[in-house]
Amino acid sequence: MRKVCVVGATQTKFGAMKETAREAAAEVSLAAIQEAGITPSDVQALYVGNCFGVSESQAHIGPLVSTSLGIPDRPTLTIESACATGSVTFREAYMGIAGGFYDIALAVGTEKVSHLDVLTATSYFAMGSDYSYEGRNGISFPGLYALMATAYLHKYGATQEQLAAIAVKNHANAAKNPKAHFQKAITLEDVMKSRTVAWPLKLYDCCPFSDGAAAAVLMSEERARKISGDRMYVLGSGRGGMTAALHDREDLTRMGSAKQAADAAYAMAGLTAAHVDFAEVHDCFTIAEAIATEELGFFPYGEGANQAAEGSTALGGDLPVNPSGGLKAKGHPVGATGLGQICEVWDQLREKAGARQVKGAEVALTHNVGATGGSAAVHLFSR
Amino acid sequence: MRKVCVVGATQTKFGAMKETAREAAAEVSLAAIQEAGITPSDVQALYVGNCFGVSESQAHIGPLVSTSLGIPDRPTLTIESACATGSVTFREAYMGIAGGFYDIALAVGTEKVSHLDVLTATSYFAMGSDYSYEGRNGISFPGLYALMATAYLHKYGATQEQLAAIAVKNHANAAKNPKAHFQKAITLEDVMKSRTVAWPLKLYDCCPFSDGAAAAVLMSEERARKISGDRMYVLGSGRGGMTAALHDREDLTRMGSAKQAADAAYAMAGLTAAHVDFAEVHDCFTIAEAIATEELGFFPYGEGANQAAEGSTALGGDLPVNPSGGLKAKGHPVGATGLGQICEVWDQLREKAGARQVKGAEVALTHNVGATGGSAAVHLFSR
Repeated sequence: MRKVCVVGATQTKFGAMKETAREAAAEVSLAAIQEAGITPSDVQALYVGNCFGVSESQAHIGPLVSTSLGIPDRPTLTIESACATGSVTFREAYMGIAGGFYDIALAVGTEKVSHLDVLTATSYFAMGSDYSYEGRNGISFPGLYALMATAYLHKYGATQEQLAAIAVKNHANAAKNPKAHFQKAITLEDVMKSRTVAWPLKLYDCCPFSDGAAAAVLMSEERARKISGDRMYVLGSGRGGMTAALHDREDLTRMGSAKQAADAAYAMAGLTAAHVDFAEVHDCFTIAEAIATEELGFFPYGEGANQAAEGSTALGGDLPVNPSGGLKAKGHPVGATGLGQICEVWDQLREKAGARQVKGAEVALTHNVGATGGSAAVHLFSR
Repeated sequence: MRKVCVVGATQTKFGAMKETAREAAAEVSLAAIQEAGITPSDVQALYVGNCFGVSESQAHIGPLVSTSLGIPDRPTLTIESACATGSVTFREAYMGIAGGFYDIALAVGTEKVSHLDVLTATSYFAMGSDYSYEGRNGISFPGLYALMATAYLHKYGATQEQLAAIAVKNHANAAKNPKAHFQKAITLEDVMKSRTVAWPLKLYDCCPFSDGAAAAVLMSEERARKISGDRMYVLGSGRGGMTAALHDREDLTRMGSAKQAADAAYAMAGLTAAHVDFAEVHDCFTIAEAIATEELGFFPYGEGANQAAEGSTALGGDLPVNPSGGLKAKGHPVGATGLGQICEVWDQLREKAGARQVKGAEVALTHNVGATGGSAAVHLFSR
């Protein structure tokens, strides 16, 4: 397998956008290509992540993006793995290069939901659950994650305030991120007083519906050495899976797919959790970040929420988590989210993250989950 | 890159089915795994092709299939490339093995549309076009292919009867295929007298909306040598692309993406069109098969329809095309179609195709197109 580098990565500001998903995808793709110092004609394949194109009556989005870039004769495909779509799309592009099929590939994720009312958007999201048993019977993702949160609070004696601290931290980080959906700091009291969405999760425990697009240009190391721009290395790529339905799981406080993906990525990189300088983690709800930081090996089980409350994962803490603001505050444009995490890593490892810069970071991890963990992808990057 | 084999491939009967897309996918996956003589736990990754899961309110179908197979911890993803979905899904699984990421992978395509009324189904299909310019303005796929057919008849002086001969041939083949949607022979008069859908295409020039699922188990050659069952080799895999919108093309009688995919597959295999003993070709409309047989290098431009009328592509002809009955008569369950073509090749190369057996075939080609050619995939197989 060949070594693979990222040589360009850009994203839109997350939040409601005027562009269609296809337009936003083309915009960020071109920007990433330009950042890489190459031209669209150098790109040999396009991997597009998108979940809800049907809501814009547009499937088969790949040829539209390639045509917008002036390279309609490139192979394209669309990938969907619910909320893990962006990272799974990146993973497939990575495999295409590592396996020797391509030297240069583009991975782009895009999503638009702001044209939908909240009920319709919630219904679309619920299609990522085991719909016959979950969505159809009235439980959507806030409810599913609330079950996980309830089990977590019960099992470990954790508190709602500890979960709320995760929201406060991520909003503080997003306030320093011009690409974030919510660039506003909040207080613990704001979270605790916000209305209950699905107990124990309150409004500020939940990520927003966002529009957005994010793209990364991947190159074989050999090819990357021939260009003059920045590059970062993909040290590890891991995937995991588990049952889509919560009712099939033995322990609602665990997300084995994330551990599986992380273990695979660590093994490929020859690293452990101790080597990670910061992480972009899938925090669709505050409980998700608590569990993720445990499954990734950062903290013992039951310690994730507490460590966040103690400040370990703050920007100046021992292990900054979600310096971008995370899904919680940077936003969650489903098909783009995982690639947005990679854009953050790209900025951080090149010391271009401005006020939210993690000082001296050399190894970064991204963790992206589909639905309640049915899909997971973890990647490790270095300068 | 490693050599890759198919070691099991099964499909449902195409046509309206009672099962949901997820159920059908699980069924054919298990059957293909059993045919390969392995167990589900041997499968390391699942690649799922599906286009219209949203119509059943079910996205993120991978973990549902893996859970049904008892292997929820396997990585999964869903791939969509409009009507080329099945072959593009196969291609990604192939790359995963050829590139050394997996030794055994499952590619499964599944689709259900029979729960939709015709107008809704047509609307879903139209999402595969450049919707902002085509579908939204009232042109759906019969109309788009009718434009191509009109240009073809005009440019080459071909006749509607020559196109109709393709339908007659494919129905004759499907009449010998117990897995076909329409197992009924038709006459040239039946086609010519059937009502006009979009001139010059008549009802019998058009493929049906079908439900169905098809799966293939892929193995590295090294691993395949350790099992006792049948295997066939993937000799070549090629992809191509072109503009989604017809208005961006210089010549409506050409489909450059198919030629591009074929040339790539031939180059990988070290073969030419002359080596192909039979082909499963994307004949969503009769005109599509005429053009395909030209782009694949079987006949000169303008000769495809005429050669079909002359019998060259009949079961007993020089180069049988669509012995299965093709999309036209075997059926077209979008996400499953390309994998269904591979199931036919699997049966033919093992001399298990019954009354529609192509005698002594050693090299077979599959050709699968998304929409009007925006995506294309071609694969070459041998015993």
